Amino acid sequence: MKLKEIGEFGFIDRFTPWFRDLIKDNQIGIGDDCAIISVSDTEDWLVTTDLLMEDIHFLRNAITPWQLGYKSLAVNLSDIAAMGGSPIGSFLSIGIPEDIEVENLDAFMKGYHDLSEKYHVPLLGGDTTKSLIHLAINVCVIGKCPKGKAKKRSMAKAGDIIYVTGNLGDSAAGLKILLEKPDLSAECDFLLEKHHKPEPRIKEGLFLSSFPEVHAMIDISDGIASDLFHILKASGKKATVETDKLPLSKELIKFAGEQHWDMIELATAGGEDFELLLTVAPEKSSMLESDFLNHFGKPLFPIGTIYDGDPHVQWMKDGIEYQFSKSGFNHFV
Amino acid sequence: MKLKEIGEFGFIDRFTPWFRDLIKDNQIGIGDDCAIISVSDTEDWLVTTDLLMEDIHFLRNAITPWQLGYKSLAVNLSDIAAMGGSPIGSFLSIGIPEDIEVENLDAFMKGYHDLSEKYHVPLLGGDTTKSLIHLAINVCVIGKCPKGKAKKRSMAKAGDIIYVTGNLGDSAAGLKILLEKPDLSAECDFLLEKHHKPEPRIKEGLFLSSFPEVHAMIDISDGIASDLFHILKASGKKATVETDKLPLSKELIKFAGEQHWDMIELATAGGEDFELLLTVAPEKSSMLESDFLNHFGKPLFPIGTIYDGDPHVQWMKDGIEYQFSKSGFNHFV
Repeated sequence: MKLKEIGEFGFIDRFTPWFRDLIKDNQIGIGDDCAIISVSDTEDWLVTTDLLMEDIHFLRNAITPWQLGYKSLAVNLSDIAAMGGSPIGSFLSIGIPEDIEVENLDAFMKGYHDLSEKYHVPLLGGDTTKSLIHLAINVCVIGKCPKGKAKKRSMAKAGDIIYVTGNLGDSAAGLKILLEKPDLSAECDFLLEKHHKPEPRIKEGLFLSSFPEVHAMIDISDGIASDLFHILKASGKKATVETDKLPLSKELIKFAGEQHWDMIELATAGGEDFELLLTVAPEKSSMLESDFLNHFGKPLFPIGTIYDGDPHVQWMKDGIEYQFSKSGFNHFV
Repeated sequence: MKLKEIGEFGFIDRFTPWFRDLIKDNQIGIGDDCAIISVSDTEDWLVTTDLLMEDIHFLRNAITPWQLGYKSLAVNLSDIAAMGGSPIGSFLSIGIPEDIEVENLDAFMKGYHDLSEKYHVPLLGGDTTKSLIHLAINVCVIGKCPKGKAKKRSMAKAGDIIYVTGNLGDSAAGLKILLEKPDLSAECDFLLEKHHKPEPRIKEGLFLSSFPEVHAMIDISDGIASDLFHILKASGKKATVETDKLPLSKELIKFAGEQHWDMIELATAGGEDFELLLTVAPEKSSMLESDFLNHFGKPLFPIGTIYDGDPHVQWMKDGIEYQFSKSGFNHFV
């Protein structure tokens, strides 16, 4: 049997139960953006790791080395943000083909450093080794949060309003530009930048996690179709999402419109937005919207509602169900 | 400039200073087997990570999937052992080519699980993704030790006796068998097993670290020529090693003898022994030798002495200096 028959999550489901008995009472393992380990009476630690493989997650000739260094750390910081944590330190493993110039490695490390500096995250260790053909980059980040306060996927409640912290689909459009090479326009630089230099929402995650009425939270790495489903599955809930309410950048609307690309599909199934998706108790939602706007000078976007029911998303447009063919990016499809 | 001109450590030396200002007072970063992060008044945490790339660190057709899973975790547990720590949890990232059978992945995870179970280390998270050609495996392990008690490379003192916890060179001979394909004999299975299924010396590391007279410690991953030099450089000391005292298995002596292989080179520059190398205050060394023997039913092997002086190893045989051409395995040579 080949892996693509069962997919990434099918593989994970096979071995996860084997390790269940080894997990201690003060540990929460596979199943959220980060593992959670209790370290004291007041603090939990969060741990996340992401592997980026050349020609799967990035094209070496499309992304600059600086951007690649920045992005390698950003996708991990985004997982810490999703749990409402603050980062403590990072660990970088890199498998390097012999043909890479040291100057490009320096630029990679500069990008990694510049994001490290922005969020005060030291690089504390790692592994440097040779790779035969493809660059392989693994980053592991440790973060912390007040004990028991990490925002988990399983915490969504019926009636919660679903929010996202920013525009969706820009990164997916950037990837589509790379792969399909349409005639370039002024919007392309913006969309490519969104794909190559995502911003981890560390400050937003910390702010949001301070409210007990913010229930479940996740970062949008695979597209909201997939990531919202993770919340629904873990919480045992269903959701409706209003496709008209999905926040889209003016650049995406213009360029996707010109190209006749399905921007709703890009915004829901494209992935790598690295915004946060969260669910909020309805009685607190208006106050949180205005607090967030005051604090960050940008809005939170309500896109739907959580209900009791079997885990699935009902996509709506003008009061009618909106039908999809895709359901998020699957690494093995 | 190509990476092989400066080597793995040359590359690390370029970017390490950039991150120095980001490191907090309670953190020790790059430069030891593990990073050290203080978590409470009584406990430090240790973090290590290792990346294994197909056709660089292993040949997919030479090692069984079970062995590869076991070894992927073992090499990381060995770093925790080297600091005298006990493991808390592991994180596994794996980049998987599409042609790999799920049954082989199950066997890989079974090997990883069996070693996890042996040392009660839960798998707490990771990342599963696609790779175009080569299997890429990154493991990150978190461990702990009593506050301030981690055994560091920088702690060797003049007069210390240098010990290793077991035979050297078996793994390197196993690798040489794989690469040079000599006529196989009864010893080959033993040597190949040593290469493919190293045992992390967690229990030995914990035992040894309980003695304040055990000063510096490191695990032997690159060969003692390289690993002892790491201790000498960090401690600002020199050493003599008696090549006649290097512990060699009877299988290595017989097979390397038949093949006219240089067994001293295999034992010093071959690497992947994953035994521990440690330096011990001379007044305690005899007692430690007998305590270790009583506790584990196997000896500690004294191989040399630490002296004041510029960092280098003087290799001795029958009172005369022994000359080497190699100095440990360099991933970029």
